[in-house]
Amino acid sequence: MRAKVVNADRAGESATRDLLLRTASDIMTEQQSVDVSFREISERSGLNAALIKYYFGSKSGMMIALVVKIIGGSIARLDELLALDIPADRKIRIHIKAIVNTYFNYPFVNRLLHRVGRIENDRFGEELARVIVTPIYEAERRLLAQGVNQKLFRNVNPMFFYFHVTGACDAMFHSRCALQRTFKTSRITKKMKTEYADEISEIILHGITLKS
Amino acid sequence: MRAKVVNADRAGESATRDLLLRTASDIMTEQQSVDVSFREISERSGLNAALIKYYFGSKSGMMIALVVKIIGGSIARLDELLALDIPADRKIRIHIKAIVNTYFNYPFVNRLLHRVGRIENDRFGEELARVIVTPIYEAERRLLAQGVNQKLFRNVNPMFFYFHVTGACDAMFHSRCALQRTFKTSRITKKMKTEYADEISEIILHGITLKS
Repeated sequence: MRAKVVNADRAGESATRDLLLRTASDIMTEQQSVDVSFREISERSGLNAALIKYYFGSKSGMMIALVVKIIGGSIARLDELLALDIPADRKIRIHIKAIVNTYFNYPFVNRLLHRVGRIENDRFGEELARVIVTPIYEAERRLLAQGVNQKLFRNVNPMFFYFHVTGACDAMFHSRCALQRTFKTSRITKKMKTEYADEISEIILHGITLKS
Repeated sequence: MRAKVVNADRAGESATRDLLLRTASDIMTEQQSVDVSFREISERSGLNAALIKYYFGSKSGMMIALVVKIIGGSIARLDELLALDIPADRKIRIHIKAIVNTYFNYPFVNRLLHRVGRIENDRFGEELARVIVTPIYEAERRLLAQGVNQKLFRNVNPMFFYFHVTGACDAMFHSRCALQRTFKTSRITKKMKTEYADEISEIILHGITLKS
């Protein structure tokens, strides 16, 4: 009986935690801002604000948990992508599309990443690197090596590749000012994000192709 | 006589304005943060904090002025670059190197750009687009067209190109967390920034090269 009670408690805890994160995510999407207060989350979810502190320790802890919830699944699937029996250039296209899709579906996620990455707290920086940055970089490093082995790619610096790809994917979603004023575009449509992912994939892949 | 007095006043005003901006820039570089208070600028420069309000209206106004002071010169030189009698691919290399150099020399400038771009104030967004984003985009659009005319480049979307280039240039300087934790690099050296500019130029230019 005891194990069952513990499991039920855990399920309850997990549902509460999920509700808090989903509420934070909803508010961030609506307000187009990651500056969400405990009070707003509490009012919207009907849960006590103290629970946020209980589950996540702090607002930064909640932000990290939200980033992991959103990107964690895609990162877990990177191993499957690496193992696929298809050419490395197709894998990189899939990878770039996945990053752009994440930014499209969660318009606040890059601001969240930048915010958490800026926090002067060793523990959060360490966690962000461990669960997000390092796994993405490691997967890209191996994808590039696969492409070199398959005589598709020339040798490129994988750290530079990481910054190039993540920076390019991020930029359109991060530059609301440029988008609105210079390009007179009030929102990024599905067509636009698909074309953007295709175009940067095309340029980057042609750019690293082994010259014959 | 009257004109002379006015000119002397203007020269004094301009020197005061410059000193305020230089002080803000020094503090931002030292503190690796764009969160600089009027009090700090006043203490360091020996000038009254009210002068900041007088010259720039607000902290955001001062940030815009600082961005313009740092990037304005490079943007003015874009017309000269466009007029040079060299192939378009060399011009794009020079352009990318100039952006990376700016981020290298002023480590806070991208944070400043993102901060100003986020401010929910029409006037600042409009100004940022008018003096920075639109001129860079227009120059790139014309560089791409030159390359197409010279049968060097295929047709690419210039808006996507703008986001791709600025995002890639920005990323390494913007991701302190990744740099420190994943890549165990405490600071970007001159060698590293030169290699990064060369590598992204190489990839992007090969990526847009007209296939024969």
